[in-house]
Amino acid sequence: MGRQKVILEKMARIFQIRNMLMRQALAECLGTLILVMFGCGALAQHILSGGSHGMFLTVNFAFGFAATLGILVCGQVSGGHINPTVTFSLCLLGREPWRKFPVYFLAQTVGAFLGAGIIFGMYFDAIWKFGQGSLDVDGVNATAGIFATYPSKHLTLLNGFFDQMIGTAALIVCILAIVDPYNNPIPQGLEAFTVGFVVLVIGLSMGFNSGYAVNPARDLGPRIFTAIAGWGSKVFSAESYWSFVPVFAPFIGAVFGVMVYQLMVGCHVKGEERDKREAVEREEKERLKLSAVSDKDAA
Amino acid sequence: MGRQKVILEKMARIFQIRNMLMRQALAECLGTLILVMFGCGALAQHILSGGSHGMFLTVNFAFGFAATLGILVCGQVSGGHINPTVTFSLCLLGREPWRKFPVYFLAQTVGAFLGAGIIFGMYFDAIWKFGQGSLDVDGVNATAGIFATYPSKHLTLLNGFFDQMIGTAALIVCILAIVDPYNNPIPQGLEAFTVGFVVLVIGLSMGFNSGYAVNPARDLGPRIFTAIAGWGSKVFSAESYWSFVPVFAPFIGAVFGVMVYQLMVGCHVKGEERDKREAVEREEKERLKLSAVSDKDAA
Amino acid sequence: MGRQKVILEKMARIFQIRNMLMRQALAECLGTLILVMFGCGALAQHILSGGSHGMFLTVNFAFGFAATLGILVCGQVSGGHINPTVTFSLCLLGREPWRKFPVYFLAQTVGAFLGAGIIFGMYFDAIWKFGQGSLDVDGVNATAGIFATYPSKHLTLLNGFFDQMIGTAALIVCILAIVDPYNNPIPQGLEAFTVGFVVLVIGLSMGFNSGYAVNPARDLGPRIFTAIAGWGSKVFSAESYWSFVPVFAPFIGAVFGVMVYQLMVGCHVKGEERDKREAVEREEKERLKLSAVSDKDAA
Amino acid sequence: MGRQKVILEKMARIFQIRNMLMRQALAECLGTLILVMFGCGALAQHILSGGSHGMFLTVNFAFGFAATLGILVCGQVSGGHINPTVTFSLCLLGREPWRKFPVYFLAQTVGAFLGAGIIFGMYFDAIWKFGQGSLDVDGVNATAGIFATYPSKHLTLLNGFFDQMIGTAALIVCILAIVDPYNNPIPQGLEAFTVGFVVLVIGLSMGFNSGYAVNPARDLGPRIFTAIAGWGSKVFSAESYWSFVPVFAPFIGAVFGVMVYQLMVGCHVKGEERDKREAVEREEKERLKLSAVSDKDAA
Repeated sequence: MGRQKVILEKMARIFQIRNMLMRQALAECLGTLILVMFGCGALAQHILSGGSHGMFLTVNFAFGFAATLGILVCGQVSGGHINPTVTFSLCLLGREPWRKFPVYFLAQTVGAFLGAGIIFGMYFDAIWKFGQGSLDVDGVNATAGIFATYPSKHLTLLNGFFDQMIGTAALIVCILAIVDPYNNPIPQGLEAFTVGFVVLVIGLSMGFNSGYAVNPARDLGPRIFTAIAGWGSKVFSAESYWSFVPVFAPFIGAVFGVMVYQLMVGCHVKGEERDKREAVEREEKERLKLSAVSDKDAA
Repeated sequence: MGRQKVILEKMARIFQIRNMLMRQALAECLGTLILVMFGCGALAQHILSGGSHGMFLTVNFAFGFAATLGILVCGQVSGGHINPTVTFSLCLLGREPWRKFPVYFLAQTVGAFLGAGIIFGMYFDAIWKFGQGSLDVDGVNATAGIFATYPSKHLTLLNGFFDQMIGTAALIVCILAIVDPYNNPIPQGLEAFTVGFVVLVIGLSMGFNSGYAVNPARDLGPRIFTAIAGWGSKVFSAESYWSFVPVFAPFIGAVFGVMVYQLMVGCHVKGEERDKREAVEREEKERLKLSAVSDKDAA
Repeated sequence: MGRQKVILEKMARIFQIRNMLMRQALAECLGTLILVMFGCGALAQHILSGGSHGMFLTVNFAFGFAATLGILVCGQVSGGHINPTVTFSLCLLGREPWRKFPVYFLAQTVGAFLGAGIIFGMYFDAIWKFGQGSLDVDGVNATAGIFATYPSKHLTLLNGFFDQMIGTAALIVCILAIVDPYNNPIPQGLEAFTVGFVVLVIGLSMGFNSGYAVNPARDLGPRIFTAIAGWGSKVFSAESYWSFVPVFAPFIGAVFGVMVYQLMVGCHVKGEERDKREAVEREEKERLKLSAVSDKDAA
Repeated sequence: MGRQKVILEKMARIFQIRNMLMRQALAECLGTLILVMFGCGALAQHILSGGSHGMFLTVNFAFGFAATLGILVCGQVSGGHINPTVTFSLCLLGREPWRKFPVYFLAQTVGAFLGAGIIFGMYFDAIWKFGQGSLDVDGVNATAGIFATYPSKHLTLLNGFFDQMIGTAALIVCILAIVDPYNNPIPQGLEAFTVGFVVLVIGLSMGFNSGYAVNPARDLGPRIFTAIAGWGSKVFSAESYWSFVPVFAPFIGAVFGVMVYQLMVGCHVKGEERDKREAVEREEKERLKLSAVSDKDAA
């Protein structure tokens, strides 16, 4: 095993990347890849099997636990956002620098693109068989819904916008509660699992309108993939340009979610800590002043 | 990022609330909002999709994990009751002051009202399409069951009262075991998850009669919302005034649950602690008396 | 609140039981009550709703998490067996005294009896409606299967005996691994959840033959209840006296499970600890002997 | 109880095995037995009940939690691989010696063989009834799919090979993240549960093509069992010798998974640790050199 260790060591040195932001981008890319690979894989299994090997519940479970696993894989390195709206919210709160936002967004979208590609390769035979030789965006043999989200028939664009906003706001409120340093109610290391439950619950209760993207990268990456892989530009123009809703609405929802959490819980908890700290500091100052006085007196 | 931090700090100071009870009420409101938003959202998805995007099991999962998330969001601040019968039971046991009860009850009901409102907005198009242009309390196109609970056809009012009592008693027994300071069997920080499992199991086994409200706020808030939003006063009078059962029966069930847990486990565990403490105190006193005697002898 | 505290204190003193075995029996009774109440409740919901509010999977989830909750409620006091075969296995391994076995068995059976009674009361209307006015053990309107287990049509008595043996052996192997003091692989406090998963998995994979009783108390208690409540003595004699299989086969399975775990993992892990301890003791003795010799030499 | 303790002690000494590799092989055998017993049991329940007692989701849950339990039972002794590709990946990374690989592979395959045998015995009556007196590999009454995996009709051998590769690569990436000593994001003791979730998610999203073996032992052991138990040599030759795909493709997938994880996360995290260590060592050396110089100066 001596020789093997030497070779492994040498390879590790060759491929090691020392730039932190580059490493974080790679990690986010892998995390989002895992989210989309498992999530869209479950959609593929559900749609292509005609229900025999999946149902909407299995898609919900897959997206939830895929979020958990994606966060676990990259969490230690990049913080495990795997969703541009999470990066955006943390920048908004001043917990991450703004320059991370475009890098993470790009890395997450590339990861989602690659994840969609893996599922396309994995279910290549099944997709062609189900589509009866063509790749359709709508109709009974449509397979585009495996990758990106499309609205239900009943949904107007306005309601769809609201749907994506609310879904993302709910996600952000829960995530902020989970990672709030002043209100940390769960044991260290279980954050990823709890976020997975949040994604699961959103899928169980907010998935009927348009498939709960609530994540611009998860929707945009696979959509670009389908545009290239053969479904064509219709993936962007379908349903009166729906494709723009899951890219923009979630950010507005994130602003909303940050405000709700901060106003109703966050800033009071943080403020309490600050009050305590300031009280201690004030006391300290008093004591110093007094001792200075008494020193003078003594002198 | 310097400027942003200053602005955030300033805003946090403006909106900070220092009154503890007010903060707790706000937190309970948000927690119950999350419970009802996700729970009733799952009911909406199940009913409006005609079963394609949900089933009774998904509703159970959603209510269970929604309870977990609701508790996580507000637990650190308010204790995470999100159910007036929990507040009531803790008051009954002398662990919370009685003056908290009306405040929490109100905050929880308001939260449930708002949660129902969010789901109404989110599924606005789908509700009108399903109801074919009207908001009905009964019939095949009824949508009132998304928000408040209504009994099954087979249920008499008496059995329904018993149903809500038993369900709440079971909930309270399990919650008391989970939070008992003398019998704490689960790791710190997992209480919210365990309570979520309790709600899930109650849904799996006690949900057929009338949809397991077991929470006056969760039922009353959304019912008031539907009365205002267009379903009308029939939401209160339907099924021979069923609406009063999920408001009153749970409190009687809570009394029952408190008694069962205390008599079968709680007061023996606590008593054991007290016996130990008293034994130590008695010994201490003996020792003091003896040493006093020997001191006198020595003198 | 002063007066309330005094009254609560006084009541706690009146009802406190100091006999340990009595308290453990009460706790086991409550734990098994919870197991059967939630488990048989899920069966009732599944059967009585004709599948609209449950399926076999929901029954599996309910029994699994009900086991978790039952163990949590009584675990600190009685060890949380809630199954006579678990008590039996621990007695067999010398970890519990044999005199506990009959007491626990009785308490568990009484708890299961009471749990069945609660479900009977809760679904009283629904049971009579489903049975169309009669309580049947077999036929399309049979409701006896809500409470005790009955074999599938394809099952011979011999295969049924083997089925109960294997199921219990699998349960015991997993439980012994979970509670083995020399091989404890899970964090303190998660035992109850892990046992819940074991019960869930057994239901998912070994439930088709006869409904996976694998617990004499869970089967016998509710069966006695149905015999008294109106189903009559047929609950014991049906299917060529099947009723005796889930009472006796599990104990044989438990012996088998104990043997498999001990031979394949347990006694090697424990033996290793003993070897280490003995090596330390031997060394100690050598050292003493040597020092005695050198002392003599010195003298 | 004195006599019982003596007998137990004596028996434990007789059966104790002191050879570590032998003990690890036994533990892996039991772990894989549990995985296959519960997993294939769920497949049997799903197929033989015609869907009334199971569906594809229950099979996914069973394999996931069975993996968790299998790992828990043997993890402390053997590391809890229960999959030859996991052993292979750890050998590839130099964390386990290569001589373990053939021993573990054999033990795992024997365990899978025995697990299949237990399920065959448990569902003996049901298998014969479902097969109408014969044991078939294909056709509507085929029962061979309970034990080993067979591809769907739409799958070409090439796509099937890719399917098994991707599935295993995904499994290995996640497992490496979970057990990476330099990137351990989950609390000690929850590894087994997390791996269970990985197996669950793979089943939810990659199970439609051929039933997600992703484990040569889990597929080969039961296939050999069916060949012997009466299904005949056709279990190997069916579907243009599919049987070789789940034995060989997973190892190629494992190499791929190791590479992806190491290049995208692993070797940077490890490299960072090494950089830190080397920096400390360099400083230490500098200091020594300097102090040597100053010592000389002093002299």
